[in-house]
Amino acid sequence: MKLVTFKTQEGAARAGWLQDGGVVDMQQVSSGALPADMLSFIDKHEEYFQLIEENNWQAAAPTHALADVQLLAPLPNPRSFRDYISFEQHLKNASSKFGHQIAAEWYEMPIFYFTNHQAIYGPGQDVPRPQGETRLDYELEMGCVIGKRGQNIKADEADAHIFGYTIFNDFTARAIQAREMRCNLGPAKGKDFANSIGPYLVTKDEMQPLLNGDGRFNARMTSRINGQTICDGNFNTIHYTFGQMIERASENHVTLYPGDIIGSGTVGWGSLIETNFEAHSALVPGDVIELEIDGLGVLRNQII
Amino acid sequence: MKLVTFKTQEGAARAGWLQDGGVVDMQQVSSGALPADMLSFIDKHEEYFQLIEENNWQAAAPTHALADVQLLAPLPNPRSFRDYISFEQHLKNASSKFGHQIAAEWYEMPIFYFTNHQAIYGPGQDVPRPQGETRLDYELEMGCVIGKRGQNIKADEADAHIFGYTIFNDFTARAIQAREMRCNLGPAKGKDFANSIGPYLVTKDEMQPLLNGDGRFNARMTSRINGQTICDGNFNTIHYTFGQMIERASENHVTLYPGDIIGSGTVGWGSLIETNFEAHSALVPGDVIELEIDGLGVLRNQII
Repeated sequence: MKLVTFKTQEGAARAGWLQDGGVVDMQQVSSGALPADMLSFIDKHEEYFQLIEENNWQAAAPTHALADVQLLAPLPNPRSFRDYISFEQHLKNASSKFGHQIAAEWYEMPIFYFTNHQAIYGPGQDVPRPQGETRLDYELEMGCVIGKRGQNIKADEADAHIFGYTIFNDFTARAIQAREMRCNLGPAKGKDFANSIGPYLVTKDEMQPLLNGDGRFNARMTSRINGQTICDGNFNTIHYTFGQMIERASENHVTLYPGDIIGSGTVGWGSLIETNFEAHSALVPGDVIELEIDGLGVLRNQII
Repeated sequence: MKLVTFKTQEGAARAGWLQDGGVVDMQQVSSGALPADMLSFIDKHEEYFQLIEENNWQAAAPTHALADVQLLAPLPNPRSFRDYISFEQHLKNASSKFGHQIAAEWYEMPIFYFTNHQAIYGPGQDVPRPQGETRLDYELEMGCVIGKRGQNIKADEADAHIFGYTIFNDFTARAIQAREMRCNLGPAKGKDFANSIGPYLVTKDEMQPLLNGDGRFNARMTSRINGQTICDGNFNTIHYTFGQMIERASENHVTLYPGDIIGSGTVGWGSLIETNFEAHSALVPGDVIELEIDGLGVLRNQII
């Protein structure tokens, strides 16, 4: 199922799913049995999926044509947002750019920071360039949405806590980030202004066919700027699985909640800093960034 | 007003305030006009404060004796939690411990990271030591709670966005933190397991008399471990004001919301790492940590 949050011409945000080239408003099709927002749906998704199946609502005709709605971030209000750095190639590229070595500790545990879960952008939404920022960048990542609360979750039990997946563009102000991180904390302002997710949230059953035996998706990940392909990678190059990332996040009695998002980190070559940094050094107003991941669609944003 | 969240003997969490050595249940005293939880109160606090004044509820007799309730974190579910590092002395102490210099950038802008707003502890609540952690530490900070939504807030307009203040103990697993931060990200797991706040949330009007002309509180900040005073500092030694921290957080169209918390950073000498680190190198199960700040009470936690 490809779950969406969308705005009708009347302007209300609604939860639903894609069907036959249109959108099904989940509350409308269920006469109020399903909720109007995605976070409430995720909170009780086991009960709701059962209702959908019992009533065969997944086969219902669209309530809206796609042309009549605007897709928003599928989950506009995640409860929290951890972002990992789990692709070795990205870390290699970024480290060599700055003359660093990869720390030995990175190979011992998945590494993350908390980013701003209250700065969520969606498909088609314009992203303002931070004032004075000279090296605005994108990062091509996969986001994993938690479905079930838990603490001290082991990697091999983590799948039961996953709700689904989406594309994540971790917009980054490199100049701001470089300055603040000389203080050995963060990133914060370099990453807090725009976390774009979407265009939809794919339930994990639908991504299952792409899973390798080792818990990694065989999923091509590409980026385009103004139509030109910049990165052509694959999720299967990731060093840590989402299971391992979930284990790390929930260690020491830390609770994960439904609606928490976990970012994979940038796929190798999936940012400007590690590609033609000198030639196309930064995103500028007018640039259109498209991120595509097999099974998860295309997430498009324009810089303003 | 000293606002509290408390649990009755029946076990329900309720919002209220301290009065005459007891607690007033705000929903009960207002016959349902005021809400049962602190976040809802903060969301519409201007309207609610007006109701309280019109009805003189602030003078109402306690609905519960203090002995009959358990105080919880005054705001158990902040919307987000930024923690700054705004005291120069703490940074000096910590830097010299590790043979670093303070980065020049620290003097140019307030520096913060996002911590775990979903791991909130309150007064009297036991804090589990993370597994295998050998250098568990505390940090003595003041927390500032946002009351009014805003973007691009200037420091000299920030007071209108502040709701109140509380004590914040930023429990820190130094061994975990040291390992993960060699990867130049975070802190995350070193700080994500227990953010203790309380015992109450003091409205800003009540802290006003302690304000210096320069926007800093003349407020003594002390810490005790098992009754022994460890730190005796003052908030007025802070380098950046909460106004400057709010300006930084809300730059580049980043929205601050009611119920967001901003941590001041650790007052100089307000952690074990910068005091008798060798002698009393770490908190161990059984240790009782008390943090006291003028006007904000005493926040007590035991390690288990």
